Amino acid sequence: GFAELDTDRRRRTGVPEVVYGEGKTPEQTLRLLAELRRTDPRGPALATRCPPAVLDAARDAFPGEAVAADPVGRTVTVGALPPPVGDVVALTAGTTDLPVAGECRATLAALGVGVRLVADVGVAGLHRLLGHLDAIRDADAVVVAAGMDGALPSVVAGLVPAPVIGVPTSVGYGVAAGGLATAAAMLASCSPGLVVVNVDNGFGAAVHAAKIVHRVRGDR
Amino acid sequence: GFAELDTDRRRRTGVPEVVYGEGKTPEQTLRLLAELRRTDPRGPALATRCPPAVLDAARDAFPGEAVAADPVGRTVTVGALPPPVGDVVALTAGTTDLPVAGECRATLAALGVGVRLVADVGVAGLHRLLGHLDAIRDADAVVVAAGMDGALPSVVAGLVPAPVIGVPTSVGYGVAAGGLATAAAMLASCSPGLVVVNVDNGFGAAVHAAKIVHRVRGDR
Amino acid sequence: GFAELDTDRRRRTGVPEVVYGEGKTPEQTLRLLAELRRTDPRGPALATRCPPAVLDAARDAFPGEAVAADPVGRTVTVGALPPPVGDVVALTAGTTDLPVAGECRATLAALGVGVRLVADVGVAGLHRLLGHLDAIRDADAVVVAAGMDGALPSVVAGLVPAPVIGVPTSVGYGVAAGGLATAAAMLASCSPGLVVVNVDNGFGAAVHAAKIVHRVRGDR
Amino acid sequence: GFAELDTDRRRRTGVPEVVYGEGKTPEQTLRLLAELRRTDPRGPALATRCPPAVLDAARDAFPGEAVAADPVGRTVTVGALPPPVGDVVALTAGTTDLPVAGECRATLAALGVGVRLVADVGVAGLHRLLGHLDAIRDADAVVVAAGMDGALPSVVAGLVPAPVIGVPTSVGYGVAAGGLATAAAMLASCSPGLVVVNVDNGFGAAVHAAKIVHRVRGDR
Amino acid sequence: GFAELDTDRRRRTGVPEVVYGEGKTPEQTLRLLAELRRTDPRGPALATRCPPAVLDAARDAFPGEAVAADPVGRTVTVGALPPPVGDVVALTAGTTDLPVAGECRATLAALGVGVRLVADVGVAGLHRLLGHLDAIRDADAVVVAAGMDGALPSVVAGLVPAPVIGVPTSVGYGVAAGGLATAAAMLASCSPGLVVVNVDNGFGAAVHAAKIVHRVRGDR
Amino acid sequence: GFAELDTDRRRRTGVPEVVYGEGKTPEQTLRLLAELRRTDPRGPALATRCPPAVLDAARDAFPGEAVAADPVGRTVTVGALPPPVGDVVALTAGTTDLPVAGECRATLAALGVGVRLVADVGVAGLHRLLGHLDAIRDADAVVVAAGMDGALPSVVAGLVPAPVIGVPTSVGYGVAAGGLATAAAMLASCSPGLVVVNVDNGFGAAVHAAKIVHRVRGDR
Amino acid sequence: GFAELDTDRRRRTGVPEVVYGEGKTPEQTLRLLAELRRTDPRGPALATRCPPAVLDAARDAFPGEAVAADPVGRTVTVGALPPPVGDVVALTAGTTDLPVAGECRATLAALGVGVRLVADVGVAGLHRLLGHLDAIRDADAVVVAAGMDGALPSVVAGLVPAPVIGVPTSVGYGVAAGGLATAAAMLASCSPGLVVVNVDNGFGAAVHAAKIVHRVRGDR
Amino acid sequence: GFAELDTDRRRRTGVPEVVYGEGKTPEQTLRLLAELRRTDPRGPALATRCPPAVLDAARDAFPGEAVAADPVGRTVTVGALPPPVGDVVALTAGTTDLPVAGECRATLAALGVGVRLVADVGVAGLHRLLGHLDAIRDADAVVVAAGMDGALPSVVAGLVPAPVIGVPTSVGYGVAAGGLATAAAMLASCSPGLVVVNVDNGFGAAVHAAKIVHRVRGDR
Ligand SMILES: Nc1ncnc2c1ncn2[C@@H]1O[C@H](COP(=O)(O)O)[C@@H](O)[C@H]1O
Ligand SMILES: Nc1ncnc2c1ncn2[C@@H]1O[C@H](COP(=O)(O)O)[C@@H](O)[C@H]1O
Ligand SMILES: Nc1ncnc2c1ncn2[C@@H]1O[C@H](COP(=O)(O)O)[C@@H](O)[C@H]1O
Ligand SMILES: Nc1ncnc2c1ncn2[C@@H]1O[C@H](COP(=O)(O)O)[C@@H](O)[C@H]1O
Ligand SMILES: [Mg+2]
Ligand SMILES: [Mg+2]
Ligand SMILES: [Mg+2]
Ligand SMILES: [Mg+2]
Ligand SMILES: [Mg+2]
Ligand SMILES: [Mg+2]
Ligand SMILES: [Mg+2]
Ligand SMILES: [Mg+2]
Repeated sequence: GFAELDTDRRRRTGVPEVVYGEGKTPEQTLRLLAELRRTDPRGPALATRCPPAVLDAARDAFPGEAVAADPVGRTVTVGALPPPVGDVVALTAGTTDLPVAGECRATLAALGVGVRLVADVGVAGLHRLLGHLDAIRDADAVVVAAGMDGALPSVVAGLVPAPVIGVPTSVGYGVAAGGLATAAAMLASCSPGLVVVNVDNGFGAAVHAAKIVHRVRGDR
Repeated sequence: GFAELDTDRRRRTGVPEVVYGEGKTPEQTLRLLAELRRTDPRGPALATRCPPAVLDAARDAFPGEAVAADPVGRTVTVGALPPPVGDVVALTAGTTDLPVAGECRATLAALGVGVRLVADVGVAGLHRLLGHLDAIRDADAVVVAAGMDGALPSVVAGLVPAPVIGVPTSVGYGVAAGGLATAAAMLASCSPGLVVVNVDNGFGAAVHAAKIVHRVRGDR
Repeated sequence: GFAELDTDRRRRTGVPEVVYGEGKTPEQTLRLLAELRRTDPRGPALATRCPPAVLDAARDAFPGEAVAADPVGRTVTVGALPPPVGDVVALTAGTTDLPVAGECRATLAALGVGVRLVADVGVAGLHRLLGHLDAIRDADAVVVAAGMDGALPSVVAGLVPAPVIGVPTSVGYGVAAGGLATAAAMLASCSPGLVVVNVDNGFGAAVHAAKIVHRVRGDR
Repeated sequence: GFAELDTDRRRRTGVPEVVYGEGKTPEQTLRLLAELRRTDPRGPALATRCPPAVLDAARDAFPGEAVAADPVGRTVTVGALPPPVGDVVALTAGTTDLPVAGECRATLAALGVGVRLVADVGVAGLHRLLGHLDAIRDADAVVVAAGMDGALPSVVAGLVPAPVIGVPTSVGYGVAAGGLATAAAMLASCSPGLVVVNVDNGFGAAVHAAKIVHRVRGDR
Repeated sequence: GFAELDTDRRRRTGVPEVVYGEGKTPEQTLRLLAELRRTDPRGPALATRCPPAVLDAARDAFPGEAVAADPVGRTVTVGALPPPVGDVVALTAGTTDLPVAGECRATLAALGVGVRLVADVGVAGLHRLLGHLDAIRDADAVVVAAGMDGALPSVVAGLVPAPVIGVPTSVGYGVAAGGLATAAAMLASCSPGLVVVNVDNGFGAAVHAAKIVHRVRGDR
Repeated sequence: GFAELDTDRRRRTGVPEVVYGEGKTPEQTLRLLAELRRTDPRGPALATRCPPAVLDAARDAFPGEAVAADPVGRTVTVGALPPPVGDVVALTAGTTDLPVAGECRATLAALGVGVRLVADVGVAGLHRLLGHLDAIRDADAVVVAAGMDGALPSVVAGLVPAPVIGVPTSVGYGVAAGGLATAAAMLASCSPGLVVVNVDNGFGAAVHAAKIVHRVRGDR
Repeated sequence: GFAELDTDRRRRTGVPEVVYGEGKTPEQTLRLLAELRRTDPRGPALATRCPPAVLDAARDAFPGEAVAADPVGRTVTVGALPPPVGDVVALTAGTTDLPVAGECRATLAALGVGVRLVADVGVAGLHRLLGHLDAIRDADAVVVAAGMDGALPSVVAGLVPAPVIGVPTSVGYGVAAGGLATAAAMLASCSPGLVVVNVDNGFGAAVHAAKIVHRVRGDR
Repeated sequence: GFAELDTDRRRRTGVPEVVYGEGKTPEQTLRLLAELRRTDPRGPALATRCPPAVLDAARDAFPGEAVAADPVGRTVTVGALPPPVGDVVALTAGTTDLPVAGECRATLAALGVGVRLVADVGVAGLHRLLGHLDAIRDADAVVVAAGMDGALPSVVAGLVPAPVIGVPTSVGYGVAAGGLATAAAMLASCSPGLVVVNVDNGFGAAVHAAKIVHRVRGDR
């Protein structure tokens, strides 16, 4: 009654329905995870933005299943992870952007996409990014999470041939509180081809990156 | 003196420097086009957001060159277009979004990427989109330009496996004037994986799509 | 002293005064409900946006009365519901929009208007809406609650002859936090005739729908 | 090529496709008017937001047709107006809101709905509205166009049983420039059931009113 | 050390320094009240925006003094109130605007100005205001607190010769959350001469009204 | 037809109806001036925000009348000015705020209120204001027009017992473009009792000041 | 793993890396302080925006070190303070701006720069500032923290030859809530040469002032 | 009458009064330039934001004087430039930011401060900046003008010990139109010590830099 899961989504788009845990009771989220698990056996069921109650209850709720609960990224995965294909790099500008990158990483893992995480390489200390450049260059896609000035994705997009996805984070205060100024800075980037998702939307960045990997690997 | 062209950009990112015609005198734009043409013979030189004076003068300014000037998309290309590879579909929600799609199409053409344009299929008459769905589904990437409510990219992203790039346009008035509400609607999409560029930025959407095509075709 | 109830409102507008529970003490809300009940015996007394303390105390406060308290929609109704006339359909884009649809449903019930609720049919999985279309088409009015991109009311308004009322919800984060971007997307709809109420205002949408039903049924 | 008219819209929604003249060349608008006229003979073809060039050329472009061009409301109608049914009242708060009411009136006329216009009855001189109240009360719907504080629709919605549609106008300066503050004031109305359309959107208000009239008259 | 009270303010402006209780520790507020009481014996000391801890402790902190603590308006007054002169009327649109009117009333009382409070006469039920009009007309000044659409001050300013001061309140939600839309509506009023203070600033409205009374009574 | 002048306004509020010239044709403005002149012989007729065409035509349109047209303040007055009573001081922060002060001065003159203008005394050179302080102190009311930071009214309100009305102007650029930041700064003033009108609304400030003068002089 | 400290920053910019305590666990902050202390023995390690848990634990976490924890400014310093050079004055407009000035003072102390604090000298009582002017005039730089109207830095910048840095604070409510209006007022200052940092960013203002002192003293 | 020049400003702040040409008639600007020239013979008179009419007329208006008119930066200087002292570097991210840097350069020149201009070194091609780094490092101050994402000042502030002043420019479109998003990005910089002036305010950045040079050189 309360929900009508889009169980056909994987067929249409290559990416399955995912439970959005915010604004749901823990019971609702766990019930929807179970329903996803039942109706789509091709991959694990995923819930994002899980409150602590869901993170804590997940393992007991699915006895006999592989369950992964990430308290930083606030995700729960039920079912074995597929073997990873493709190569996505997830960068963060600061330490406090890690939860957003965590949501991105867990989503990619659930979708069966390989992901490498490089944290805390913001533009205030540019040499940190430059030291990782060779590793970034050949990725299928690069996800860059940054708060405050949102400058890191612009710098990265000017340096590598991989498609770059900026994720503005709500890390920041004053004019950057809430992440809108950060999102605007990324949208207004002077580096051609940078694309942007909603503030803190590590999930959406992961899905776009996965769709690119699907295209590159010819999966769909 | 007045400019320091980034002639190394194609080597780093796979996409060459492009002249941004807004806020420049016609003389500046034409001079920079000439310099690009001279320093990077691997592809045509491109200028976007050209005022009428540049569109009118371009052909005479480059005698003996293949010159394309598009008054709708406001682009000028100097040099022969490369043979197109890959398959990008550019959709518009309305007739008045065509200039943005035009900028996107000219950019893809200059980058040697194949592009198909489907106009005026906004959600107020949904059957128009559904009639084109088979043609869209297998594209390497889909660019969707829409103004006002910005709903079309969300609907498309829920229907196809291709990566979808939303381009909010400044078409609209009242709360949508300037395109910011439209951009916000796209960023807040309930369809996973939709990514967004700046308002009216057909150019940026094209560059991201080209980078995806480069990855898919293994060019870089 | 602290309030001057508009007990004449039903005579003037066909819709009685309703207690707005936010920012009032539980005692104030219960006292005003009692006063409404006393001064207007033609229908039940309604309070919206009730805090838990009012929801919990309502039944005991009105012994011998039919009292309905809805913890999801946060409404309290005191007095028997009138037999429903007319046919309003309330749609939600997602599960988390249910509280807003609940406020709408309780208000229509208190006003004696028939209402059918269809939940979780957002545009990310369009087939869900299309499957319900025949049931929606002939309604006297359609209320559509949606958060995030607010695209669902635009799609509905392009498909049915019934007047459509969009209710932006505060469901969403980042650029959609608070519901203003969602409201703007609905106001800027490319589907003609879509009208909009304030964010989360299921109550206002219900009153407008009831006024339409009154006109259609010739009640006033 | 440049447009894909939604010629099926009248069948689906009771209201035909209409040409939006802004951002189109005069040639495009006139060609689309001709196409609408040809494909939908059940009623006149309508274009809104017409630039002077369209208003001037319309009569000559459709020889032998009844053509109405309204320079205040900026509309063009091609084909005989249907006999009006129903009763909609359009109010304006000030003289300068007349263009918006004009767009509303022309749209209703083209849709075959009866409309009465009452101008310049804003709340700074409340007696002006009160003097017209009897005439407003029994309308099928009331459209109220107001700029600046946008207070008039709230006052009207508290006085009559008819459904009230507020149209914020861009009349005003300073904090009201562009009409957004006015729109917000209407959305935040303390009068239950007031619904709102985009700034200056007399067209959309008319379509909603017409859909109500269709319901009341049982046309669809 | 932590504060440099403006003990000269009454001499310069006719209105003494007042303690702003927000963001101060209870100890700081009480110490500043004591210092004001000591340095300016011509009238009571006033603190606004007092947290519960200050409201509770005030009476014990000033033994032998007349102390008034208002939990609704969140004010504390230390010292006997002067006999009231002049006549200010404070109106509220709704019940939930009472705290703002309370701050205004306490400030006027501390300044020795007479004040009458009329609550809950918003424009959704216009007859409530009209019934009080004769009492309002001859006031020295009228303060009108309203949230949501902020329409009441405009209506009042069009009806009486007294100077009218609008106080937007933060009562409201969605587009009106925080009170900014309400403030904008008042600033954009179509009623000439309406002036506005900050959201919820009952204190500031009172001070302006008191300065008018001082001018009218020739006190300064 | 197109207008319904509020000819009763002077009786109700002490201040007559005034023509708002923006968005009207010159013919409309001149006709309304004539109608005001005819229906209210107790004082001159006033139009504000007049375009050049009205300023130029005014004198010839009213032969035999005293006509004043001010190209800086953009006002036209038809009929002899009443002898001034009361004392209002109008200050400007910069030279470019003069048009707003001009509108204020012309309105006060038409209302029969005495006004003194002191220009260009902004806070960047504070001694300029301090040199005029004695002259300001005893005014019935002080109007302060300022753009950019809007700091001058706060400084004035902290120095004099007269009621102070801030008029934010649209003078400024960047974050101050349009005057909204300036208006916010005045509303958030730390000087108690400062009241604010809309951006560039010299007219509204004048009406409030006149209402104060009426109270002080006991005229009404 | 979770962080990549920029231990080279002092060499490049003259100012070392500092721990930003917001959004970090107490353990992370303390570990990073320890790492800074270890890698950069030339000066104390500093953390800003520390939650109570860090302030409480700091002293025990660094036995044998000089540890300073400031609960008002929310800073922790580990290691002996360098002898202060240079002369920076930090002003606040109100008492409630003290936390921001405290962060500034602690940062300057950690950087070895001399600082004098003058509190509560806002423009509502201008004589308070004027009494301190001689002490301010010769500073190497002046930092001015102000909320609400943000007028104080403009007044200061018009009076002294020292470079002035404005720090908007989030002190204020209504239109000033969050500090954005205050920041805009400072950016739009009519006093030439006023520069601005983010809301509540006492840290950033201190670093800029320290860089000026470094230039003046020839340290770097 | 229309202006009260602050001829004492140089004595108080070290920087003289400057004419702001926007919103003034050419006659007013030229008259004020003449008055500045007459009252302050210690340096040239400067006007900023001059319309073409002032730029064209300046030379003839001051026969026998050294007059410099810069059509790009829109400045006019009357009187011989002082010999430059100190070393300020002005960077621009793009070619279209040159007018802002031009205003900055002309102001510094008029104030007798040495300035070097480095154009078009934005972060999309980072090597361009890195190639100039040695020249920037030892400046007394660095002014960085950038539009769009505003990332360049953050990158610079992380690389050099000089105090860095960011000037957001109005170069950009969509979310960056008007420069507010750019300004926010700079204020939210993750690079400590970056300070910001208003959008396009090359003048203000120059004055702050000059005040630093005065401190460094011990001039005042
Ligand atoms: N973190 C997330 N951010 C945005 N969308 C999400 C997220 N997680 C899941 N979703 C999408 O949100 C939709 C669920 O919304 P609901 O119908 O309210 O359960 C699903 O279709 C998901 O694809
Ligand atoms: N959920 C709601 N949203 C908006 N308005 C409401 C709501 N519930 C009741 N109201 C209206 O708000 C008014 C009550 O305001 P108050 O005087 O503060 O109680 C009533 O006249 C109701 O018609
Ligand atoms: N480009 C500029 N941006 C901001 N302020 C300026 C500019 N040029 C001059 N000013 C200042 O603006 C003030 C002039 O204002 P006004 O009285 O309107 O001429 C002077 O005190 C100048 O110091
Ligand atoms: N409720 C209030 N709203 C605005 N300003 C106030 C209020 N109460 C007191 N004030 C003013 O705020 C100033 C106190 O600021 P502070 O130095 O932070 O205590 C005083 O000078 C008061 O005149
Ligand atoms: Mg870090
Ligand atoms: Mg179309
Ligand atoms: Mg769902
Ligand atoms: Mg009127
Ligand atoms: Mg009420
Ligand atoms: Mg000046
Ligand atoms: Mg104080
Ligand atoms: Mg460039």
